[in-house]
Amino acid sequence: MQVSIACTEHNLKSRNGEDRLLSKQSSNAPNVNAARAKFRTVAIIARSLGTFTPQHHISLKESTAKQTGMKYRNLGKSGLRVSCLGLGTWVTFGGQISDEVAERLMTIAYESGVNLFDTAEVYAAGKAEVILGSIIKKKGWRRSSLVITTKLYWGGKAETERGLSRKHIIEGLKGSLQRLQLEYVDVVFANRPDSNTPMEEIVRAMTHVINQGMAMYWGTSRWSAMEIMEAYSVARQFNMIPPVCEQAEYHLFQREKVEVQLPELYHKIGVGAMTWSPLACGIISGKYGNGVPESSRASLKCYQWLKERIVSEEGRKQQNKLKDLSPIAERLGCTLPQLAVAWCLRNEGVSSVLLGSSTPEQLIENLGAIQASSPKDDITCGK
Amino acid sequence: MQVSIACTEHNLKSRNGEDRLLSKQSSNAPNVNAARAKFRTVAIIARSLGTFTPQHHISLKESTAKQTGMKYRNLGKSGLRVSCLGLGTWVTFGGQISDEVAERLMTIAYESGVNLFDTAEVYAAGKAEVILGSIIKKKGWRRSSLVITTKLYWGGKAETERGLSRKHIIEGLKGSLQRLQLEYVDVVFANRPDSNTPMEEIVRAMTHVINQGMAMYWGTSRWSAMEIMEAYSVARQFNMIPPVCEQAEYHLFQREKVEVQLPELYHKIGVGAMTWSPLACGIISGKYGNGVPESSRASLKCYQWLKERIVSEEGRKQQNKLKDLSPIAERLGCTLPQLAVAWCLRNEGVSSVLLGSSTPEQLIENLGAIQASSPKDDITCGK
Amino acid sequence: MQVSIACTEHNLKSRNGEDRLLSKQSSNAPNVNAARAKFRTVAIIARSLGTFTPQHHISLKESTAKQTGMKYRNLGKSGLRVSCLGLGTWVTFGGQISDEVAERLMTIAYESGVNLFDTAEVYAAGKAEVILGSIIKKKGWRRSSLVITTKLYWGGKAETERGLSRKHIIEGLKGSLQRLQLEYVDVVFANRPDSNTPMEEIVRAMTHVINQGMAMYWGTSRWSAMEIMEAYSVARQFNMIPPVCEQAEYHLFQREKVEVQLPELYHKIGVGAMTWSPLACGIISGKYGNGVPESSRASLKCYQWLKERIVSEEGRKQQNKLKDLSPIAERLGCTLPQLAVAWCLRNEGVSSVLLGSSTPEQLIENLGAIQASSPKDDITCGK
Amino acid sequence: MQVSIACTEHNLKSRNGEDRLLSKQSSNAPNVNAARAKFRTVAIIARSLGTFTPQHHISLKESTAKQTGMKYRNLGKSGLRVSCLGLGTWVTFGGQISDEVAERLMTIAYESGVNLFDTAEVYAAGKAEVILGSIIKKKGWRRSSLVITTKLYWGGKAETERGLSRKHIIEGLKGSLQRLQLEYVDVVFANRPDSNTPMEEIVRAMTHVINQGMAMYWGTSRWSAMEIMEAYSVARQFNMIPPVCEQAEYHLFQREKVEVQLPELYHKIGVGAMTWSPLACGIISGKYGNGVPESSRASLKCYQWLKERIVSEEGRKQQNKLKDLSPIAERLGCTLPQLAVAWCLRNEGVSSVLLGSSTPEQLIENLGAIQASSPKDDITCGK
Repeated sequence: MQVSIACTEHNLKSRNGEDRLLSKQSSNAPNVNAARAKFRTVAIIARSLGTFTPQHHISLKESTAKQTGMKYRNLGKSGLRVSCLGLGTWVTFGGQISDEVAERLMTIAYESGVNLFDTAEVYAAGKAEVILGSIIKKKGWRRSSLVITTKLYWGGKAETERGLSRKHIIEGLKGSLQRLQLEYVDVVFANRPDSNTPMEEIVRAMTHVINQGMAMYWGTSRWSAMEIMEAYSVARQFNMIPPVCEQAEYHLFQREKVEVQLPELYHKIGVGAMTWSPLACGIISGKYGNGVPESSRASLKCYQWLKERIVSEEGRKQQNKLKDLSPIAERLGCTLPQLAVAWCLRNEGVSSVLLGSSTPEQLIENLGAIQASSPKDDITCGK
Repeated sequence: MQVSIACTEHNLKSRNGEDRLLSKQSSNAPNVNAARAKFRTVAIIARSLGTFTPQHHISLKESTAKQTGMKYRNLGKSGLRVSCLGLGTWVTFGGQISDEVAERLMTIAYESGVNLFDTAEVYAAGKAEVILGSIIKKKGWRRSSLVITTKLYWGGKAETERGLSRKHIIEGLKGSLQRLQLEYVDVVFANRPDSNTPMEEIVRAMTHVINQGMAMYWGTSRWSAMEIMEAYSVARQFNMIPPVCEQAEYHLFQREKVEVQLPELYHKIGVGAMTWSPLACGIISGKYGNGVPESSRASLKCYQWLKERIVSEEGRKQQNKLKDLSPIAERLGCTLPQLAVAWCLRNEGVSSVLLGSSTPEQLIENLGAIQASSPKDDITCGK
Repeated sequence: MQVSIACTEHNLKSRNGEDRLLSKQSSNAPNVNAARAKFRTVAIIARSLGTFTPQHHISLKESTAKQTGMKYRNLGKSGLRVSCLGLGTWVTFGGQISDEVAERLMTIAYESGVNLFDTAEVYAAGKAEVILGSIIKKKGWRRSSLVITTKLYWGGKAETERGLSRKHIIEGLKGSLQRLQLEYVDVVFANRPDSNTPMEEIVRAMTHVINQGMAMYWGTSRWSAMEIMEAYSVARQFNMIPPVCEQAEYHLFQREKVEVQLPELYHKIGVGAMTWSPLACGIISGKYGNGVPESSRASLKCYQWLKERIVSEEGRKQQNKLKDLSPIAERLGCTLPQLAVAWCLRNEGVSSVLLGSSTPEQLIENLGAIQASSPKDDITCGK
Repeated sequence: MQVSIACTEHNLKSRNGEDRLLSKQSSNAPNVNAARAKFRTVAIIARSLGTFTPQHHISLKESTAKQTGMKYRNLGKSGLRVSCLGLGTWVTFGGQISDEVAERLMTIAYESGVNLFDTAEVYAAGKAEVILGSIIKKKGWRRSSLVITTKLYWGGKAETERGLSRKHIIEGLKGSLQRLQLEYVDVVFANRPDSNTPMEEIVRAMTHVINQGMAMYWGTSRWSAMEIMEAYSVARQFNMIPPVCEQAEYHLFQREKVEVQLPELYHKIGVGAMTWSPLACGIISGKYGNGVPESSRASLKCYQWLKERIVSEEGRKQQNKLKDLSPIAERLGCTLPQLAVAWCLRNEGVSSVLLGSSTPEQLIENLGAIQASSPKDDITCGK
């Protein structure tokens, strides 16, 4: 990977102290403007890191919220407007996280302009949905201001509770809605394709849950471009509702699908990308630069696979690349994770990047990819 | 504008005293007949004011109510019968209007044969819908005798509460129905097109709310003929429900769309016109003939734009034209506003003209475009 | 009309006394067999009265109930099985009939095997539906054993409560269901075509109420063959549900539509005929043979039109024809009305004949067109 | 029928005692493995008994539950996963069976991995559904882990309660759901075709009940291949939902339909087979080898037809064939009924075989066709 830097704007770091003072008053315009200027710089740098294909200039009409600086894009070519940063709940609510921390994370996200919260029927065996739903209820956020998405998985115990049969799609989604205490989700995703179920049955069932008011849209997760294309074509054949979005892994070390395959789908059939793991399971946080520290995720027994990946030769090559990026981030006044998240967003085919932060500090830092100026003070106090 | 008058019927003004006496008894036939004769005259005059295009003789089978003299037409080529005068609630319920005045206005309209009441999710931030719904409930009018229409706007706070995404169409309409305390509206309008949302999504969502029983029909508002045509063609492509009506501004000084574009749409795809602002925001009332009086709407701060329009050169030209019309109205025994409203109705492609009157006096006067003989006595006493 | 009689079976009249004795015990087989033999004879005679067109041998698989002798046919080519005699409620429940008599009539019909009860939103201003519904509830008859049909009329007060707009079809049917205290009717009829509403809107609305579970099938009433064909073709064009049945007047003096037009529709698109007025408003009862008696319907003020028809030259010719038929009926051991009803049934394109009898005696007599052996004793006592 | 045996695996019978000891502890792996090995052997033998047609290698991705050894297949090409042995309730709940025995049977089946329970509106006049539903409720089994199927029959008293009219399909299924205390069944079967109802009406009604959420899929029962093909083609013509499964009789003496006709349907349109009567009404149990014993089903009055079949020449030929099979079963360490059931399962086009066992002992024995090692101890104790 060739790294070239075009530092077209002044280094913003020196203004940090000043900004912090300002931002304590309110999220006033100059502060947000500074953040935007910085974001633009980060984006320019990130873009310079190269892409596989010539960059398509996709015009998702992006808008920016005045108060928070958050940016919004359409989910694919659908009319649904999502914040370009969303909160995933796999890592976030997946462990032994307390309800208090979960609420704190969601509040930080919401008040930073995040409107997209993603979960799945299997995260923490359904507990992630329960927590998400109860916090939404407790906080009294208007349902219409939120984009709640869930995924149908393969995690059921019984044979019938797996795969993408009509039965599982309907029953699985009903279960999710109950746990979420919601009447409907905004997008229901079919996680992993199911070669054992005819595509017609899947698309018919997805159309059914939308017609029944249990979901507004449907999408795919971890499907190949060909499988998505088949879903679209079956929807067209039988006058049913096509998917609007694919959830895909996307970060510096996993680029091919989002940068090569999905743009074509976006252009041809309007399917957008909602990406996850922008920090490659924490690898891009930089904390594994000198092996695996004791308190890190990769040191846990159940993350043995992650440790192995990190200490492999491939893993060490990745750490070297990250070392090249660190000074760039520093010069831009942002952190390496912020640079990595901003880098994902530079791909205009990406509708939203899901953050998997599990602590308030991490989340605030990650959100800073957009609002760079001391987001912590801004968000947790100001309001 | 060339003004020519063909006064083919006797001047009705002299009979006013007699009529008033008669009408105090009941809305008996001779009185109504006189009103009809007069209406015909007004219509003939109005027609003589000229049109851009040769007049199509559109045969909306018009009927007249015996008791009130109100006329009814089909909304476009749909089967829905609307009174040719409707009550808008933007101006009417938009200001600091009291619930008592609102009820008085609706009662006057209803008892004059008006069956069409139009509102929108944003009028008075939703309060217009609340008032409209509570009055209907209080008065106990049969739901099936009323045509209630609302519009989905761009007024939501959150990104997701604007535009014409499936999410906003469904959630927005649900919100309106709650405020209206109704199970369904008769027509739901999509206000302004949304180039950011695919037409397929819009038409699919509109068809969905109709199939769910939340609306009987759907229409557009402020869409271009080309956009309406696209909606129609998408509806045909996917076997969905096409729109039946466009809401458009129409008055003496804004004629092109309703007179040139919409008739073609009506003939080709049956879309009718429901027009608003027949008095051009009060300009045609004649009260701005000598500048902007202190107590008028245009003198209010938030109507600065209106004041500017009135005092502009274009505005003064308009006032001059109105001065030419005044004697015509006088000779016909009607007021200038009545002539202006009757002029809108002469266009048979117009299904209904929405009145925006904000006082009982104005409303009674405007309704007089149809029932010319002392409508005040008739309507507010008699019953 | 040429009358020829082929008396292929022995005269059954002489066996009346014996039959009455037998039938008091139970509706045992020989008795029913006798009734069937007689019915066959009547049918043969009736057929000999001639038709406009060569008789199509339509094979509506007719079945006969063992206990009652009632025959059942499919409604058109649909799967719905209706008794070939039904009870109409226009005359029946239309006057000052008491609830007790109404219940008696329905009980007689039900216990004679009638499963078809027809009403309309306007009969007795809605009261016919109320009575019908409350009797069904009171008697506790299984809903699934009954075929309840209603008709949408033009009788509403308001402009919107007439015609076949989507609004009126949905609201009108909802009103009927409320009055009937039913979740759904089996067939909803659109009474009279509405040239003011596009056929697409009508068929779409009918399909909607069926999909919503408010009706099982839909039909037309007093539509021309061309109008029914248009409804069918629109249903095919948009993949909607076609009508299954036309309600039409049919008796000795009104034959053209049912005998010439409807058979073609039946063969091409499966639309069946449910006919009414088998006795031509009582003319065929024979009671007007010597003018209009004082106590008869035609002597009532509001039936002036009927009186005029009877005493006209055309009316007298009809009476003369009836005089020719009387001896035939006598020889067959049945009454003139029974012969007239049986004559309607001989047309195999007719799915069911609606009886409009307003007294228990008349109803029992009319039902005797099928079960000829002393039905009165059989039905009102035995059970 | 030529019988040839390829005993490719060691005889498992000698290990029975050991197995029994092991299985008392838990259903541990070696035990299940032994069962699988044995099942494979049985299958190989069974296959050697010959088929009418060259065996298609249909790849219903079969999976095996670890704990129970039960195998699961897709129902036809649909995504629904059913256990390859199901419990029918015609014989099972049809007689004077007590609720306790019924519960015991269902518990045994469920704990052996059976997820498929089949019933019908007419079994025991509806009582089979009532028992099935109340046991499910009492046991608290997750609805999503069960596949409940019912059949619409011809058993209604009234004319309208028979056949496959839209009315009967909707009302019949509603009745079943009430008796079952369920919101929906997984598959609703149309038992016997109805030549009196148009196929369009049948498929439209089936699609309707699925769209209304009353069923997940629909199937046919005792239909010919041509009739199923017509249903499929009508579904395609009108964009409706095609059937997924045919219920058919299938055993050693009734092979033609399942082995010749259905495989073609499976390959062309994905319709699978759910078969019943694997023991030919008990004939294959071997108990009729020496005539009809006094306590057997065939000795009952109402099973006269069965007795006649058994003692006929054809019947005696069948008994002779069974005598040839007995030693094969013995050598394999399984019973004749187990061999017969396994033989049905060897046909990969068969999705599931419904067992009709009416005593716990019989059921446990039959289930042993899959889990051969002392299932009684395993299932009724262990848990």
